[in-house]
Amino acid sequence: MVAMNETALREFLVSDFPQADGQYRVERLTDDGLILRLVVDHMHLRPGGTVSGPAMFGLADVAVYLAILSRIGPEALAVTTNCSIDFMRKPEAGRDVLCDVRLLKLGRRLAVAEAHLTSDGGSEIVARASMTYSIPPARDAG
Amino acid sequence: MVAMNETALREFLVSDFPQADGQYRVERLTDDGLILRLVVDHMHLRPGGTVSGPAMFGLADVAVYLAILSRIGPEALAVTTNCSIDFMRKPEAGRDVLCDVRLLKLGRRLAVAEAHLTSDGGSEIVARASMTYSIPPARDAG
Amino acid sequence: MVAMNETALREFLVSDFPQADGQYRVERLTDDGLILRLVVDHMHLRPGGTVSGPAMFGLADVAVYLAILSRIGPEALAVTTNCSIDFMRKPEAGRDVLCDVRLLKLGRRLAVAEAHLTSDGGSEIVARASMTYSIPPARDAG
Amino acid sequence: MVAMNETALREFLVSDFPQADGQYRVERLTDDGLILRLVVDHMHLRPGGTVSGPAMFGLADVAVYLAILSRIGPEALAVTTNCSIDFMRKPEAGRDVLCDVRLLKLGRRLAVAEAHLTSDGGSEIVARASMTYSIPPARDAG
Repeated sequence: MVAMNETALREFLVSDFPQADGQYRVERLTDDGLILRLVVDHMHLRPGGTVSGPAMFGLADVAVYLAILSRIGPEALAVTTNCSIDFMRKPEAGRDVLCDVRLLKLGRRLAVAEAHLTSDGGSEIVARASMTYSIPPARDAG
Repeated sequence: MVAMNETALREFLVSDFPQADGQYRVERLTDDGLILRLVVDHMHLRPGGTVSGPAMFGLADVAVYLAILSRIGPEALAVTTNCSIDFMRKPEAGRDVLCDVRLLKLGRRLAVAEAHLTSDGGSEIVARASMTYSIPPARDAG
Repeated sequence: MVAMNETALREFLVSDFPQADGQYRVERLTDDGLILRLVVDHMHLRPGGTVSGPAMFGLADVAVYLAILSRIGPEALAVTTNCSIDFMRKPEAGRDVLCDVRLLKLGRRLAVAEAHLTSDGGSEIVARASMTYSIPPARDAG
Repeated sequence: MVAMNETALREFLVSDFPQADGQYRVERLTDDGLILRLVVDHMHLRPGGTVSGPAMFGLADVAVYLAILSRIGPEALAVTTNCSIDFMRKPEAGRDVLCDVRLLKLGRRLAVAEAHLTSDGGSEIVARASMTYSIPPARDAG
């Protein structure tokens, strides 16, 4: 069921997301998804030291993308079509953010996943997101 | 932490949701929410025998509402402000639908929950929803 | 661009949605969608006389479905995959609800639309929804 | 109805969002919202030259925030609680992105808005978002 293991995902992140370099770190694959870390940096912060909404959105987006590729392989295309995200608490200042992705559906055309974001070392969910990716056939624009 | 136990929730459903009479059944409280059953009937079906989208939406809406009241008591007001729902698979024909609600945030003003819907006896999630309820102060219109 | 005019949509509603009989009424096609009326009845009401959330969700769902079919024809399949809905105000008691749908994308595989719901005779939007429909090829389960 | 005009909004953006410096530009206030421009730069691009999802999310988030403040003033607090976003088409390479915000509800506790994103010079909507902001009382943590 796993097309890319953790090592393959880490290499893919370096080779195909050079702009992500150092921002994201694959923690581990899970039974139905994976955990991705946002290595928090000043560029992710809002005034006051909180991780910004777009940084959390970006984390969830990359995490779901990697979770899908981990199951279907790196040649596949997958484009975000929908995201619904709830921001529930402020992330703790000075902490990385972890994103725990669970794939709920991995169809031929659509994949749906849930993501729970927590501050590293914290137990409360600071944000949750659900995401849909479209998986186009190789020569299809969608 | 629990303001209404299963018996209290069942009595509340009968007394305050007479139109729900027999449609919904409280299965049990869980650590962070509850499980509600939709007793599927012809009124919930689409042509072809599938449970309709509005019936699944209604199930999730009532289930989250009851999960909130189970923690804050029946005197409270709570109104749905947002729902995002993904329909992922067809529910199995001729089966009840179970809705497993997890409260993610229960603040003074907003509550956020996730709901996973499965066909009774099935293991796959047929739909997922996230819902926000506003909890107005007694004399506040929102 | 229009595959079904208003008469064709009304006939389709009667023939293919018998359970909708009398509940929904096609008001008119618009440049980029259509307007559908919910003929409000006791079955759509919550205690207090307000139109229920599931009734508004159902209205938006049928309205978007008809808007899609009006452009691609009644033979097509289209299944709801995602809905995000915001409930912003109470609909006025004793009034029908109108749903104004705007198709934003009508691709080969996915259609996305926005819907604005108002009480008949009112100007304020009581709810808004965005919906995604998947348009499977004839022999594809999605 | 307008608490901050275009000049006030531009000054606010410089003074309170220094990290946004040059990224966003207030185009103009509209009857029910405003138009904000994302001045596209290499930092907003994905491989292939497309504006990234997080950059579009960030644009919509800031645009809705400014639209709310333009009506209630810069002293107010407002925090994003929910966003649902649909990505429908690729933005055109080498073009700024414009975000047209419409405030649908501006209550004492919650504000809801819709945003439509287009490539500068293009007519098709590349993404749409709906956002809810919570407006806490001055001494309330939500």
